[in-house]
Amino acid sequence: MTSPSEGVPAHPTVTLRCTSCGATYADTEPLWACVCGGLLTVGYEWPAAFTADREAALEQGRQATGLWRYAHFLPPTADPGAAPVTLGEGDTPLVPLPRWGERHGLRRVYAKLEYVSPTGSFKDRGAAVVVAKAAEWGIGRMVEDSSGNAGASIAAYSARAGIACDIFVPAAAPTAKVRPIERCGANVRRIGGTRSDVTAAALDAVSDGESYYAAHNLNPYFTEGMKTAAYEVLESFDCQAPDHMILPVGGGSLFVGLWRGCQEWRSWGWVPSAPRMHVAQSTGCAPLVTAYQQGSDEPAPIDRQPTVAGGIEVVAPPRGRHILSIVRESAGSAVAVDDAAILAHRELLATLEGLDVEPTAAVPLAGLASLAREGIVSPDETVVACLTGSGLKDPS
Amino acid sequence: MTSPSEGVPAHPTVTLRCTSCGATYADTEPLWACVCGGLLTVGYEWPAAFTADREAALEQGRQATGLWRYAHFLPPTADPGAAPVTLGEGDTPLVPLPRWGERHGLRRVYAKLEYVSPTGSFKDRGAAVVVAKAAEWGIGRMVEDSSGNAGASIAAYSARAGIACDIFVPAAAPTAKVRPIERCGANVRRIGGTRSDVTAAALDAVSDGESYYAAHNLNPYFTEGMKTAAYEVLESFDCQAPDHMILPVGGGSLFVGLWRGCQEWRSWGWVPSAPRMHVAQSTGCAPLVTAYQQGSDEPAPIDRQPTVAGGIEVVAPPRGRHILSIVRESAGSAVAVDDAAILAHRELLATLEGLDVEPTAAVPLAGLASLAREGIVSPDETVVACLTGSGLKDPS
Repeated sequence: MTSPSEGVPAHPTVTLRCTSCGATYADTEPLWACVCGGLLTVGYEWPAAFTADREAALEQGRQATGLWRYAHFLPPTADPGAAPVTLGEGDTPLVPLPRWGERHGLRRVYAKLEYVSPTGSFKDRGAAVVVAKAAEWGIGRMVEDSSGNAGASIAAYSARAGIACDIFVPAAAPTAKVRPIERCGANVRRIGGTRSDVTAAALDAVSDGESYYAAHNLNPYFTEGMKTAAYEVLESFDCQAPDHMILPVGGGSLFVGLWRGCQEWRSWGWVPSAPRMHVAQSTGCAPLVTAYQQGSDEPAPIDRQPTVAGGIEVVAPPRGRHILSIVRESAGSAVAVDDAAILAHRELLATLEGLDVEPTAAVPLAGLASLAREGIVSPDETVVACLTGSGLKDPS
Repeated sequence: MTSPSEGVPAHPTVTLRCTSCGATYADTEPLWACVCGGLLTVGYEWPAAFTADREAALEQGRQATGLWRYAHFLPPTADPGAAPVTLGEGDTPLVPLPRWGERHGLRRVYAKLEYVSPTGSFKDRGAAVVVAKAAEWGIGRMVEDSSGNAGASIAAYSARAGIACDIFVPAAAPTAKVRPIERCGANVRRIGGTRSDVTAAALDAVSDGESYYAAHNLNPYFTEGMKTAAYEVLESFDCQAPDHMILPVGGGSLFVGLWRGCQEWRSWGWVPSAPRMHVAQSTGCAPLVTAYQQGSDEPAPIDRQPTVAGGIEVVAPPRGRHILSIVRESAGSAVAVDDAAILAHRELLATLEGLDVEPTAAVPLAGLASLAREGIVSPDETVVACLTGSGLKDPS
């Protein structure tokens, strides 16, 4: 029986650093943000012998499957000999979209099916790593504020790890969204007021010092899990980067993680280039697209409008500056699409390619169609679009 | 970019044989059953050099991912150089169930997460192979009778292949079950009367000679797709068979396919033994368990009662004789569990292990608990339970 931990070498030394004040922390402290409120990133001291030999490094994980094939690229877990927290996430399919591509004049479009995952969304990569760390720290209770994919994922991985879990959701969250969370035994805490009030309630709940805030839009470990999707894409293309990647961006954990993964491998000389990174948002909630168009470094203040893309309704993404810097550094772009386009591309994906996704996951295809029309993406360039949530998540 | 077809050798010669009258057919004819009405099985002429060298044979598919890694164990598709019809099915996770196992006195229980699949159920393995054959034959329209997992899967793969699709469902089929089928562009044909009337309408629709009946409970190609799940399990255990496999059985395509896969590898000396195969059914619809208890070779006539396990409500499984013979040949058993046990184990799976499945997929765990109590499964024996459908399929 192969297990996720077999063949995994000793982990690199890890330090967390605040991107605002520069404070550093060991990863033995259960933090999700700096004490100054700034965002933390995970820094590694990779052994030179490790980064110098791509094939040897990748071979070290080949006995494992899924995300934990890359355990030696991730923060250490308490017992390197024990299997980390896993439900079998990762190793998601990468499939070509020949018919959708032909319709839009693109010959090399691929979809990374991040929803073919234990809870039906891409959040499982982040949840696996965050909950593995929480288990290492001996956390008694996970706390998260999300009625959507992140809530379902944190609830499932907390159950897997035997950790209690409180998920804070807006009072009006639909029952169908909340049921998977409840089924995994999490306490669903319905909070009235604004979305900010829900977050405030979650933060209040972790002030006991024994609970840990999963904080998927802030948490540095969450992003580390996400970067494994980049590794998989790069390996699928025989260690060549696609020309473009495009994905739905709300808080941007996947966006930041993908770039991080690509940058690591490029910095080690494992891949010759990095993809151009494109943000796709709904016109109903497009603080990053607006900022990009205005040439601003900060997410723009917006008036949120109703949108079918509920998975990316993040008015003020905490990682907004970082996301915008990635767009510029990678020569990418940011594109907003309206609900009509989102639903049209959801339908095209299902009827032309057999891929049934939730509306949010169709946003990158609507965005890509726009980029193709504008000539930002050329017919023979390779594009990977990340499809983030299953159609079963939203049977509308 | 690795593709599903790279590294795949020439296919074996394939002949279909009727298990009733013995008639044989080339696999170039679009059949789903014998003209006599009997069940067909796919027979291969494996080259001796292929079956003699396990490592070499498996290596031939390693450039591909998912089910089509085993393309050379499957019926040929029209153009061996082209990618077969695929949405990235296969390579499903195999995860241990330590907490559920401890609760039931079993130390080596594993779940094969067949629902971590493009449409959220195990049916994708069968649909991929059946629709690939249909594409090879130039079929203009797929026909299927199922409002559940098979309908959703055939609809998705038909869309992927660019083949029109009619799915016949009972008039009373819930909208939530039918929506994923409709989203993939299939024509949903609601039929009044009994379940047999739905099947009759499907059969009538294929009498035009240009349509093909997917017939998931009969179709020999469907079962061939299923056998790849066995290959994956055997590879996961380093080519040792688990002591036991248990799964929910309605029509039994997965059950038959798993056994077929295990038997192939055992007959070639690739694995030293085969698992004991256990049928799990709902007490509300247990024709195979009743027959097993009565010592009968044929599915028993039953009065169906309402059950939460709608995915296995097959009153008269066409492959019943074969399934019962597998149970006996493998020294397996058949166990029926009631709705209370099914729902209790659904909850245990989610709360103890983080696995949220539809009620039908909890049937094997309820059954395994019963086998453990009876001493049929011992504490240190290795058991694989197949979890067939996602909890997102049934948000009750």
